[in-house]
Amino acid sequence: MTPFLIQNVRKQVPLVHAITNYVTVNDCANITLACGGSPIMADDKQEAEEISSLCNATVINIGTLNSRTIDSMILAGKRANALGHPVILDPVGAGASKLRTETVFRLLDEVKFTVIRGNISEMKTVYAGSGTTKGVDADEADATTEDNLDSVVRFAKELSARTGAVIAITGAIDVIADSTRAFAVRNGHPMMSKITGTGCMLTCVVACYCAANPEHVLEATTAAVSAMGLCGELAHRDVEKLDAGTATLRAHLIDYMSKMDDAMLSRGEKIESR
Amino acid sequence: MTPFLIQNVRKQVPLVHAITNYVTVNDCANITLACGGSPIMADDKQEAEEISSLCNATVINIGTLNSRTIDSMILAGKRANALGHPVILDPVGAGASKLRTETVFRLLDEVKFTVIRGNISEMKTVYAGSGTTKGVDADEADATTEDNLDSVVRFAKELSARTGAVIAITGAIDVIADSTRAFAVRNGHPMMSKITGTGCMLTCVVACYCAANPEHVLEATTAAVSAMGLCGELAHRDVEKLDAGTATLRAHLIDYMSKMDDAMLSRGEKIESR
Amino acid sequence: MTPFLIQNVRKQVPLVHAITNYVTVNDCANITLACGGSPIMADDKQEAEEISSLCNATVINIGTLNSRTIDSMILAGKRANALGHPVILDPVGAGASKLRTETVFRLLDEVKFTVIRGNISEMKTVYAGSGTTKGVDADEADATTEDNLDSVVRFAKELSARTGAVIAITGAIDVIADSTRAFAVRNGHPMMSKITGTGCMLTCVVACYCAANPEHVLEATTAAVSAMGLCGELAHRDVEKLDAGTATLRAHLIDYMSKMDDAMLSRGEKIESR
Repeated sequence: MTPFLIQNVRKQVPLVHAITNYVTVNDCANITLACGGSPIMADDKQEAEEISSLCNATVINIGTLNSRTIDSMILAGKRANALGHPVILDPVGAGASKLRTETVFRLLDEVKFTVIRGNISEMKTVYAGSGTTKGVDADEADATTEDNLDSVVRFAKELSARTGAVIAITGAIDVIADSTRAFAVRNGHPMMSKITGTGCMLTCVVACYCAANPEHVLEATTAAVSAMGLCGELAHRDVEKLDAGTATLRAHLIDYMSKMDDAMLSRGEKIESR
Repeated sequence: MTPFLIQNVRKQVPLVHAITNYVTVNDCANITLACGGSPIMADDKQEAEEISSLCNATVINIGTLNSRTIDSMILAGKRANALGHPVILDPVGAGASKLRTETVFRLLDEVKFTVIRGNISEMKTVYAGSGTTKGVDADEADATTEDNLDSVVRFAKELSARTGAVIAITGAIDVIADSTRAFAVRNGHPMMSKITGTGCMLTCVVACYCAANPEHVLEATTAAVSAMGLCGELAHRDVEKLDAGTATLRAHLIDYMSKMDDAMLSRGEKIESR
Repeated sequence: MTPFLIQNVRKQVPLVHAITNYVTVNDCANITLACGGSPIMADDKQEAEEISSLCNATVINIGTLNSRTIDSMILAGKRANALGHPVILDPVGAGASKLRTETVFRLLDEVKFTVIRGNISEMKTVYAGSGTTKGVDADEADATTEDNLDSVVRFAKELSARTGAVIAITGAIDVIADSTRAFAVRNGHPMMSKITGTGCMLTCVVACYCAANPEHVLEATTAAVSAMGLCGELAHRDVEKLDAGTATLRAHLIDYMSKMDDAMLSRGEKIESR
């Protein structure tokens, strides 16, 4: 992608405020450090704005949503907007409950997101909350495949046009788009779905990459998606060699992220412009 | 135990809603994935029922109990009862505080549990909350040994008769019972007590195994207990070989669970009918 | 340091109540077990006092502070004070927000701490909350170096005199002091800052070491700081050998802590009396 993209992260060490779920929060903190950033988690509404002010990017992840933290998310997001910091939304489980869906709608209404990253099902809920609900053909897709890739790309571009955010729809093939340009990423390995938190962790990597490369949000997001997938591939290769299992996959994935640089990504990235 | 028991889990990929403590929640999510299920954690009372409805089993673990989540536990448990889904109770620390003990009593009063899993001390508190408190001879036992195994088995059967739940009392020897039948499991290794979360993780494995084998709850629970112990044994063998420590034990335990199948369990299980 | 210090921990298995942040809580529980203690986490104000009463030490860590748990911290701390148990403060992020700073001030006002452990920036905030704010020369220091070590030692001694607590200021060089004596510890490796939770984990190890060696709080705290650093050094050596990354560092660090004994610490400690 862009030269020096990861080097910029490692030089700047962006501080990322994450209001995130308690299931994967430790992995999120560790991958943020591994990829070159520095994490702070603060979800009380008495300090959410202040902490976002100190940081270079804010992540909002609704994975274990509760009434107490929704206001904190709004406050942190608005403050980051006011300061021009990237704000990344991870709409975990959007569509699975009324609380989550309505919270995503409220977030879309009150905060301007720089990037929104989710799976196809979550992103359809985001779409439903982002304006008039005229049908898009990706609406029927449950997963991105070579067969429906074109329609997922069109869906992502339209969702970007509606929200003003770069859209990252992750799955077997990942699609990253703004309103006019898109990339398909074919890194990753199916075994990554057997550990929790790969999505949440990726969202934090996206935040770090965007914070350090604010002029290239689409490229930074694409690079983050590709880097995460590449780490999964390399970790899976180790698991096979060691005849190990999912806990080893997770540890090696973070290990590789801590060693990732522009040259390593350049050698391993499987990115196609669409 | 029952043929195809684990194969059923891996085929059906049961969705498990866990309202659980924040200490071991990441391990719980990862072992659920490793053993063949898929986890969702949602503890806000605005969505607890809806999420349980989507799932195939519900786990209630009181490990870091707080006032906010007790109502969510009741709501999720009742909804799972109404839908006929297995509901598993992990009464972590029951007896250690008034809040925990009273919450267990309230849960026993309002929710019908399919399986209750805890250590002998926690299970005595459950017993006290499950009806008239006539003494049982296991009441004096602090740990299950070959010497008091008979009395622990009788205690477990009586507790099952009182609660209608399959009872799993884990310890050096594990006892799993319904009101008429019981198994003793001698898998496991003492080093497992040197990592946090083995009990919480086991409860999630029990939920997956029961959800995929609803006609064989006693056998499914026994298989889960045996599988967890076997993973601990194999992990401990690796730790010895590598001269490693407790973090390696934990990672390898999850690794082995991700590779567990019926043949592997059949070779390693140490299950005795009592 | 003191002979049998770690042996005392492993013999007594101190029970530690930690009201701590949800980012690193699992690591805190696992390191507590690894170093020879046993952890309980309970942050609801209905049970905080009762749980502290059952325990041998109480840890208060403000890492993901929220309004609900501040009262629990005060209650647990006061109860532990009343019982004469060690109470350890980890003022994570003190100074980063008004909520954190004010909470630290309130804690210092209402609870008597046995040990306070933080980085230099956090400890300056603690200093500001501990009495009249006459300047100290460490006030300008952002990190402890050989050049400013003397002034950091003086600062630590004065802070100890003000608070009555043993002070542990961790960084590239660690300084541990009471009002009259101090130690500098040069164990550790910079890569430890690339994983989350090394500070939080250390605070739990301090609690275990102090609970089992109540007559030697300064020595016990110094030994804990040195042991943690040594584990980091050994883990880093493995990472280099394996060409691994930060997740391996974290696992091996906990592995080494689970194997730590007085002889191993004695061989590896880099402790200087100041």
